[in-house]
Amino acid sequence: MSEFQPKWLEQIPEENAFRSIFKWGAKEQFKNPSQGFFQVIKKGLNLSDEDFKALRDIGDTHVSTNVKPKMELKDIKKFESIVGIDNIFFDTYSRLKFSTGKSMEDILKLRESRIEDISDIVLHPRNKQEIKAIVSICHDQNFPIHVYGGGSSVTHGLDCPNGGVTLVLSTHINKLITFNETNQTITVEAGMMGPVYEGLLNNAPEKLNAKHKYTGGHFPQSFEFSSVGGWIVTLGSGQASSFYGDAYDLVISQEYITPTGSFKTQEFPATATGPKINDIMKGSEGCFGVLVAVTMKIFRYQPESAKPFAFMFPRFDDAITVAREISQSNFGMPAILRISDPEETDIAMNMYGLANGILDKFLSAKGHKPGDRCLLMGQTEGEPGFCKYLHKSIKKISKKKHGLYLTGYPMKKWRSGRFSDPYMRDALNDYGILIDTLETSVTWENLPGLYMQLREYIKKHPDIILMTHASHFYAQGTNLYFIFIVKSCPLDEYRTFQQSIIEKIVQNHGSLSHHHGVGRMMGPWMEDHIGTKQMDVLRSLKVHFDPHHIMNPGGLGL
Amino acid sequence: MSEFQPKWLEQIPEENAFRSIFKWGAKEQFKNPSQGFFQVIKKGLNLSDEDFKALRDIGDTHVSTNVKPKMELKDIKKFESIVGIDNIFFDTYSRLKFSTGKSMEDILKLRESRIEDISDIVLHPRNKQEIKAIVSICHDQNFPIHVYGGGSSVTHGLDCPNGGVTLVLSTHINKLITFNETNQTITVEAGMMGPVYEGLLNNAPEKLNAKHKYTGGHFPQSFEFSSVGGWIVTLGSGQASSFYGDAYDLVISQEYITPTGSFKTQEFPATATGPKINDIMKGSEGCFGVLVAVTMKIFRYQPESAKPFAFMFPRFDDAITVAREISQSNFGMPAILRISDPEETDIAMNMYGLANGILDKFLSAKGHKPGDRCLLMGQTEGEPGFCKYLHKSIKKISKKKHGLYLTGYPMKKWRSGRFSDPYMRDALNDYGILIDTLETSVTWENLPGLYMQLREYIKKHPDIILMTHASHFYAQGTNLYFIFIVKSCPLDEYRTFQQSIIEKIVQNHGSLSHHHGVGRMMGPWMEDHIGTKQMDVLRSLKVHFDPHHIMNPGGLGL
Repeated sequence: MSEFQPKWLEQIPEENAFRSIFKWGAKEQFKNPSQGFFQVIKKGLNLSDEDFKALRDIGDTHVSTNVKPKMELKDIKKFESIVGIDNIFFDTYSRLKFSTGKSMEDILKLRESRIEDISDIVLHPRNKQEIKAIVSICHDQNFPIHVYGGGSSVTHGLDCPNGGVTLVLSTHINKLITFNETNQTITVEAGMMGPVYEGLLNNAPEKLNAKHKYTGGHFPQSFEFSSVGGWIVTLGSGQASSFYGDAYDLVISQEYITPTGSFKTQEFPATATGPKINDIMKGSEGCFGVLVAVTMKIFRYQPESAKPFAFMFPRFDDAITVAREISQSNFGMPAILRISDPEETDIAMNMYGLANGILDKFLSAKGHKPGDRCLLMGQTEGEPGFCKYLHKSIKKISKKKHGLYLTGYPMKKWRSGRFSDPYMRDALNDYGILIDTLETSVTWENLPGLYMQLREYIKKHPDIILMTHASHFYAQGTNLYFIFIVKSCPLDEYRTFQQSIIEKIVQNHGSLSHHHGVGRMMGPWMEDHIGTKQMDVLRSLKVHFDPHHIMNPGGLGL
Repeated sequence: MSEFQPKWLEQIPEENAFRSIFKWGAKEQFKNPSQGFFQVIKKGLNLSDEDFKALRDIGDTHVSTNVKPKMELKDIKKFESIVGIDNIFFDTYSRLKFSTGKSMEDILKLRESRIEDISDIVLHPRNKQEIKAIVSICHDQNFPIHVYGGGSSVTHGLDCPNGGVTLVLSTHINKLITFNETNQTITVEAGMMGPVYEGLLNNAPEKLNAKHKYTGGHFPQSFEFSSVGGWIVTLGSGQASSFYGDAYDLVISQEYITPTGSFKTQEFPATATGPKINDIMKGSEGCFGVLVAVTMKIFRYQPESAKPFAFMFPRFDDAITVAREISQSNFGMPAILRISDPEETDIAMNMYGLANGILDKFLSAKGHKPGDRCLLMGQTEGEPGFCKYLHKSIKKISKKKHGLYLTGYPMKKWRSGRFSDPYMRDALNDYGILIDTLETSVTWENLPGLYMQLREYIKKHPDIILMTHASHFYAQGTNLYFIFIVKSCPLDEYRTFQQSIIEKIVQNHGSLSHHHGVGRMMGPWMEDHIGTKQMDVLRSLKVHFDPHHIMNPGGLGL
């Protein structure tokens, strides 16, 4: 095997460069494919070391073009008088930065120095009163409003096709409001970022004068670069959702500022007072109003009791059967539960340095062969005895289906990389390799059909790596997450390919999204997907909250 | 102690009598207060045996008045041509019967032979097409539509103040549609009654060709006389909700016929495709459209693993602290968990024949004295090992707070009477004693204040028994259920008293309902309770689905 490794680009992007906008995560942090993964990519994409000798569009040019805001100066002055001169920006770089998410398409555009669909001004409001004043002006003058939390949208949720105002909430609207240990809730401003939120809770005895430590239980892969409000309005889901619930399950109350008025839903453990406004606002993606504060359920934090596990199964359907049995067994759910399909399993074995070693030989001898075998792994969390009993029960069920116990090692490996893996995308992109994801949810019954059809379809694309996993489990079904790696191609061609996959998902009884949300990317499918009568309900709510159609226009397909 | 017992009326009501409408449950079934309970009532209400010698208004007169329907014959004929002559009724008795719920006020009116707020015609549609045709005519001609499932509303949900049509769903719209063991769901028509539903599931191997037995996990006290659709549209909650969830949590998908169109929400385990129409329709109480079919989550049925428990605590706040600890401990929840306040505890001791016996002496000696001590009881359900560990954990927590273990006996006693206790209301009413309930949900933080304020207020009423319990638990709080027993009084006076209690609940941070729903009883409070801005959202949905305001007008306060 060649020892060659590409010269991965490990430079802090220059301040004004396109790269500084699209680069994932912390500007000084990098993660490159391991030698194992690099070999997998070369083989899967039919590439040679030669293809990794020259960098492609790395986006190091500066955003120097001056795109004039369409907004008149007198209007800009109005906003300036609200937020103050330090909190208003209308230079092109700022407008581009806060109108850009983290989808593959966003990145490709920036690598090509394309400036499209940007807002006219960027505001960093300091409090609710300022947001109210801004929304009021925008409503009166028909300026579109887009809300930016952590900026990790992968559904074109932040594009501003008609310009307007981008409100950045994470700058100032990010404070703790109240912590209530009795009710086991915390109320924070919507722009608080994931790590700050979790940091407060994990250190509750010191920081919040609490008796216990807590966790929010919500860890999307974008955790470090996403905001609490963003989790709610996009209906996100964390990697430990099977125990703690999706963002949907975690919100007790929300406070909104809409063009037609402001309100805060009430804090009750449960009610029977008609359809819940709290529900109606969840997942509204900024199309109804600006979410300014949330009250969230929290959980006791007991990391010392967490028990990781991993099993190798002979085939994908064995792993699925086991996950279904776990999810329907009435003994509680592990926090993390993941199944990798055969292709992802083989790649994981390579990435974790387990391929071709003793373990590999042992597995093969037992009939768990590459190309068929599947990794199931996870972690129980919660009260120690509960964790222990659940762990034991999962082992028992897994062994019945010929699951070979691999200890907690693969889980620990995955845990250590779970937030840093997205950094690898930049490294690969630099050599003209695209890595993207699409995801769906599906009932157990429709899972095998969807999986097979999608895999068959996607693999028709020449030279493609397709890794699939299920990572959020319910008694009624799970999600499927497709990660595909292909050679760079013109954007239109790429978009056509991506859209054809979305079509296939919907045709095969998958939902349009399990946890990425709708945005402008899935928007065009919404009406077909949920049906005109149900889309009419969303449209009528849109008219109610936002009669001038200024709130994130085009989001949710509205 | 006097051995006197009143001559409780145990007669099957005559077919056409008012009594045949209001009598709870099966016409040939009766349950009378035990000697212990009878003594409690006499003492609490300051009554003597003399007061139980003569029956009051027992509602045995016949519904002989002929109240003419306001609807014209040609319109009645239209409906007849849809449902057929066997499924249309416009005699006064039928109209009264299906326009009446089971609130104390409903019963008092019928005992006084009052005929108010009845529909013009009663239809028993045979299928969805007929319902569509009926809704279409009503929409065109502005006839109100009221939907009747099991008829157990206690919130004036079935009154027809402007006449119109009552659609009875439980007669024909009550069939199994599909059972899906893979997805662990069942799809049934909305009018299927609780026992039929649970019977199918419990006997799934024989009746549905299933591998396992199942349960719906939903057991409201009205279980035997309520419909699956009714559970959803009123947001009901069953006695085992702490493990299985409220009706709200159990619905995967709903099919509606509304004046502006029909739709069925999709079946996915979870989605991130914007606000969920499935949520918007839950709790809509027939104000948006007619619920015709539902897909529900189901659970493995493992009655042999259920482990009952009961503890006596020195004081109410000890029991509450323990219930909160259980609910926040991250080891799963017992299916049933109930705390009786000191007054209810003392009455339970009397009802179960435990007062003044050895147990009573033992408890008192341990410092668990009548007037202070509180009964906490429940039952773990689910997978056997999970049940066992949870049971053990609950014991451990309870003992720390000086809970004395009473074995599973009180739970078993309660279980045996849980569906038959409502029969006692008729027996007491016959002697001029009213028994009624109001309920709310509240966060842990607001619980003590609400409880104390309400108790202080209600106990100002002369000669009143007030039993309070919490019976549905969440990490964030619980419900409070107030049962009060008073001497009969004029209806207006009674209504004023009841309304003042509702006021007090809301003032003290309780929700307007935890699981009875809104109906016309709570409707007038809705705007104040949730606020005008949120009520506006419900109003806008109302206009969207039902522009002519024909669907259950006045329900939900709309």
